[in-house]
Amino acid sequence: MIPISIPKVQKALVCQNPGPDYELKVLSDYPVPEPGTGEVLVRLSSSGICHSDLSYLKNEWAPELTLNVKVPGHEGSGRIVKLGPDVNEKVIAVGTRVGSPYVRQICHNCENCFIPGMDVYCDNGVYCIHDMDGTFAQYCILRADYICRVPEALDEKCVGPILCGGTTVYKSLKQSNLYAGHWLAIIGAGGGLGQMAILYARSRGLRVVAIDTGADKRETCTRLGAETFIDFKESKDVVAEVIAVSGRGCHGVQVIAPTRSAYNLSVKIVRFMAILWLWVLPIRPMGLVFKNVKVIGSLVGNQQDISEALDLATRWNSPPNIEMYTMEEVSTIFEKMETGQLNGRAVIMLD
Amino acid sequence: MIPISIPKVQKALVCQNPGPDYELKVLSDYPVPEPGTGEVLVRLSSSGICHSDLSYLKNEWAPELTLNVKVPGHEGSGRIVKLGPDVNEKVIAVGTRVGSPYVRQICHNCENCFIPGMDVYCDNGVYCIHDMDGTFAQYCILRADYICRVPEALDEKCVGPILCGGTTVYKSLKQSNLYAGHWLAIIGAGGGLGQMAILYARSRGLRVVAIDTGADKRETCTRLGAETFIDFKESKDVVAEVIAVSGRGCHGVQVIAPTRSAYNLSVKIVRFMAILWLWVLPIRPMGLVFKNVKVIGSLVGNQQDISEALDLATRWNSPPNIEMYTMEEVSTIFEKMETGQLNGRAVIMLD
Amino acid sequence: MIPISIPKVQKALVCQNPGPDYELKVLSDYPVPEPGTGEVLVRLSSSGICHSDLSYLKNEWAPELTLNVKVPGHEGSGRIVKLGPDVNEKVIAVGTRVGSPYVRQICHNCENCFIPGMDVYCDNGVYCIHDMDGTFAQYCILRADYICRVPEALDEKCVGPILCGGTTVYKSLKQSNLYAGHWLAIIGAGGGLGQMAILYARSRGLRVVAIDTGADKRETCTRLGAETFIDFKESKDVVAEVIAVSGRGCHGVQVIAPTRSAYNLSVKIVRFMAILWLWVLPIRPMGLVFKNVKVIGSLVGNQQDISEALDLATRWNSPPNIEMYTMEEVSTIFEKMETGQLNGRAVIMLD
Amino acid sequence: MIPISIPKVQKALVCQNPGPDYELKVLSDYPVPEPGTGEVLVRLSSSGICHSDLSYLKNEWAPELTLNVKVPGHEGSGRIVKLGPDVNEKVIAVGTRVGSPYVRQICHNCENCFIPGMDVYCDNGVYCIHDMDGTFAQYCILRADYICRVPEALDEKCVGPILCGGTTVYKSLKQSNLYAGHWLAIIGAGGGLGQMAILYARSRGLRVVAIDTGADKRETCTRLGAETFIDFKESKDVVAEVIAVSGRGCHGVQVIAPTRSAYNLSVKIVRFMAILWLWVLPIRPMGLVFKNVKVIGSLVGNQQDISEALDLATRWNSPPNIEMYTMEEVSTIFEKMETGQLNGRAVIMLD
Repeated sequence: MIPISIPKVQKALVCQNPGPDYELKVLSDYPVPEPGTGEVLVRLSSSGICHSDLSYLKNEWAPELTLNVKVPGHEGSGRIVKLGPDVNEKVIAVGTRVGSPYVRQICHNCENCFIPGMDVYCDNGVYCIHDMDGTFAQYCILRADYICRVPEALDEKCVGPILCGGTTVYKSLKQSNLYAGHWLAIIGAGGGLGQMAILYARSRGLRVVAIDTGADKRETCTRLGAETFIDFKESKDVVAEVIAVSGRGCHGVQVIAPTRSAYNLSVKIVRFMAILWLWVLPIRPMGLVFKNVKVIGSLVGNQQDISEALDLATRWNSPPNIEMYTMEEVSTIFEKMETGQLNGRAVIMLD
Repeated sequence: MIPISIPKVQKALVCQNPGPDYELKVLSDYPVPEPGTGEVLVRLSSSGICHSDLSYLKNEWAPELTLNVKVPGHEGSGRIVKLGPDVNEKVIAVGTRVGSPYVRQICHNCENCFIPGMDVYCDNGVYCIHDMDGTFAQYCILRADYICRVPEALDEKCVGPILCGGTTVYKSLKQSNLYAGHWLAIIGAGGGLGQMAILYARSRGLRVVAIDTGADKRETCTRLGAETFIDFKESKDVVAEVIAVSGRGCHGVQVIAPTRSAYNLSVKIVRFMAILWLWVLPIRPMGLVFKNVKVIGSLVGNQQDISEALDLATRWNSPPNIEMYTMEEVSTIFEKMETGQLNGRAVIMLD
Repeated sequence: MIPISIPKVQKALVCQNPGPDYELKVLSDYPVPEPGTGEVLVRLSSSGICHSDLSYLKNEWAPELTLNVKVPGHEGSGRIVKLGPDVNEKVIAVGTRVGSPYVRQICHNCENCFIPGMDVYCDNGVYCIHDMDGTFAQYCILRADYICRVPEALDEKCVGPILCGGTTVYKSLKQSNLYAGHWLAIIGAGGGLGQMAILYARSRGLRVVAIDTGADKRETCTRLGAETFIDFKESKDVVAEVIAVSGRGCHGVQVIAPTRSAYNLSVKIVRFMAILWLWVLPIRPMGLVFKNVKVIGSLVGNQQDISEALDLATRWNSPPNIEMYTMEEVSTIFEKMETGQLNGRAVIMLD
Repeated sequence: MIPISIPKVQKALVCQNPGPDYELKVLSDYPVPEPGTGEVLVRLSSSGICHSDLSYLKNEWAPELTLNVKVPGHEGSGRIVKLGPDVNEKVIAVGTRVGSPYVRQICHNCENCFIPGMDVYCDNGVYCIHDMDGTFAQYCILRADYICRVPEALDEKCVGPILCGGTTVYKSLKQSNLYAGHWLAIIGAGGGLGQMAILYARSRGLRVVAIDTGADKRETCTRLGAETFIDFKESKDVVAEVIAVSGRGCHGVQVIAPTRSAYNLSVKIVRFMAILWLWVLPIRPMGLVFKNVKVIGSLVGNQQDISEALDLATRWNSPPNIEMYTMEEVSTIFEKMETGQLNGRAVIMLD
């Protein structure tokens, strides 16, 4: 293999003052880190941008989730360029295409590491942004024992959005007992997360009722495979429409738009024995008892979930809406995000 | 087989005026029904009494759940004494020991009848009390195609309490993914339902943290197999005690005492990936997302669940507290129930 | 509803002498049965033909599976034209489109009736052909408490083949833990059963390796959605080809061609933790231990399975190959079947 | 912490000539290894002995499973005495009680590492005996990222037998869908593995039919919780006896005695929808199709399985038969093993 020349410094987006007045600057001389024992160095080509990146920058999360490092970002995509000491090159080769998820390192020793699929809750986990520089930079460090491979066939722009957001919606479907022919309602289906939810639901043969508003979102949801689109601003009775199309309500409901009215709706359109996913907001599950409903709290997926989500995406006929930006345009993205103008997901090119 | 002589009239507890001023009278000349096509006549020997019986008598449930019949009761135990026309005697014999659950008849045709374990939600279900006379009488009618057999080895007094309440707690454990070695917290463990929850949890090898109050309940819970009893009135910090004994919180929490404080407690003592059962009250699942918790609404079990719950009870070393009363004493039971003086479940003898 | 006029006699295919020299005659004056208590009368419009029909006619099955009735056939499709006594017309209406599966009646009382999905193994089950006239006739009797509804949207010719064969392959996929992105090898994919297996696998997002032989079958399998077709007569190394395309072998293998070489192949191409379905032939699972493989014996599906299989078929883009015949042509079908000239499934029109 | 003094040499059982004439010598000057990066050094106090140890010594396994190292043994129990470089002492402390299973190291990168519970099949796994010295010595090396903790409460002699054999039977029960009240037949229940199978089955509330021969084994099986013991040499009809006691056959059958007659028996006593475990020998599953039976190939468990198996054992009322030997007596054990005189499991003390 031809040795890859690795520079001493790199371009990176750096934030020195997380909080309401945060600033995010492009530096050209940010040092490239050296991989330690059991680590690998990755040359990133792009990084997805998630709403949680903005929350971190603004320091709006819980105190223990403060941005402790200089480089934010947690959905990086790239290739391994150097192996640290004691990394077995038969297992991980330089050149391997990889993604950097939110969880960077786990201890392989705690209870949560042992429970299948729960290692992302590792007691001793090391997370992007809190404990290690994130992925809004040209290089980052990953642990050799916690690598996410990326299929060569996958379009660059899809990698970042899938690593965190896409995998989260994918995992929630995988954890459910929904199968081909079942109805899934997605409340907030037109946004970036919702679009991927439609695609993953379709890959399992689920029939999708997309609930959102606007002609653009109607067109997008339909293009991605939703069988029905209900515009909640125009519909006279959303519940009645969902019941009419699905027969008796939906076997699963994903609430992606975290508003109280969305949750109230979700309880009304869910079928007997169905499943209700929630990410953030509280809900008062009146009437759930009589429907034998499961409410599932769900966080990000682990390596296997990510691996499957990436693989399925290599066979998407029509991709979700993803906009590409340069590092210099990053503030534009966050402005659009805050004003609700992002039509899908955003990705920063790091080359 | 010696023909069984069936009288024309029977003793029955009859209520003519459900509501706040309800009266429950013992009649000696209530007519014995005749089994129709596909039905069997059962001579009841006892009937469990559930808190929901009281609610029905007082008409405190939703309007569609009004007491429409004269004889209340829904946990009857007895033997088949006569087969109606078209009942196959090779399949169901006179003399068979059976129980009468809350659901008396299902249509075998709707979606819920087809989903495994969901037939109790049948679209066309016929229910004790609403649509057919209940079990506070010496005879009742059951459908040949919806029979619950009772093992000969089971103690009479246990049958009624298991048919509805016992099966409900049993089914919730069966639906969970909890297995031997896991910790289960039962909030309200000392009552009739809680006692059976302890027994069923132990039969699966679960380790039980019983939470309730009082020396009597401590003694009962410990006798039935709870590994730890926490008196919530005496404990300085219930959450800390549960965490200490279980290591990291419990793998499952059953909230049998439907109070807001019980629900708030449940969320704090549940482990990652754990399961939370609720029967009645709303809950605000703050923090569930980060614990990957499932909240499950649960109703009564079906024939198979009842059958398993009855079978396991034939091998209980120590039974739950069950008090036997005569038909004439029924008002005493409801008085005790209203004033919280019932130490376990109550059963009426119908012989 | 306009009363439907029901004749006294009907056209039916009748066999008086099952065995090697069986004869199957078209009678025009076979009596139309009268529905008894709890039964419905169905006007059949078509009936699928299965290889097992031939085996029954030739009396090649086990002695206890002898053809005891005059009219063979077990995959009938039609509409209810009359309700027997005690059938609730609110639950089942005249005019309902229904299918008649192999299992006609269950007891709703035995252990197998209670186990979810196992009611087809009912201890007291009544079966087409053995105990009741089959579906090669214009009218048949079904039990009101064991009805399979057929979606109005489904193409007539698909109903019969799905009721038995299609549901069997569908159920085996449903019972598995295979999900979108997994590889499924189907050995014998080009036949009638195999074609439906491809369609059902695709509806769940599985990636199909079709194994069979001939240009026709290659074209059919590819049209129905197989990602790869391997011609076992032309391939130099089937195992190597399967491994190459699937990466490490297939997550599931369905052996539809019941030959010893097919079973030997199946064991070689199955992945770790994978699933192997077999219908008839013995297998020596050497090496399964080291792959943590499950071998599943599988019989026909129940009402819910059939209902789901029919529903999915209403959205097939491209149907399997199904040939339609008149009642008079039935001997032609069995000839083709015996000489392997049937290119898919066959259906008899009964109008 | 007081520094632990680690000697340069240790006592170890060494084999230089695996094969039919193998010799196993006690050396007193075998070098103590130094833990490398990511490794820990363990002071072993005992090691279980498994029949596979004998097979390895005699070189009777497949060529790729040859004994490549000098010290055999794979069921070691002890405490960590030294951490290698880059081991996080907050995650793993010196003094931790640990066990050494057959799988010593996994790559955390291959497909099998990612599938829940399948990491023991790691593509790049490093195994005791083949690739690293085993546990018939006073010291051994483990990987910090593949540690099995041992509960302090567990009796020393139980640790080794559970690490491999006990976990294997435990895992097979865990993977099944058997639950409290189900019948489990164990063919070969009186041996070391069978005894642990009884205990683990009982911990889950299963009802055990123990099948073996001899008064000693009858007494042992009954003491450990088997509900019925059938002596296959004395019984006139084992199948009839199993059916009589279990009603319809057993919900699960574990074939621990790998003989053809045991497998033939297993197929006859298994219930509908039941589960059949096999470890080594081929089986011809005639009739499995009609019983909807699963046949599961099963290998050793992973860290989580081991952890659960060890934990449950801390609450065994009555332990299985385990005999303790000195290092010098090891040849005695293998002699007894070859002549079938071992009444349970054997453990070597290494202090």
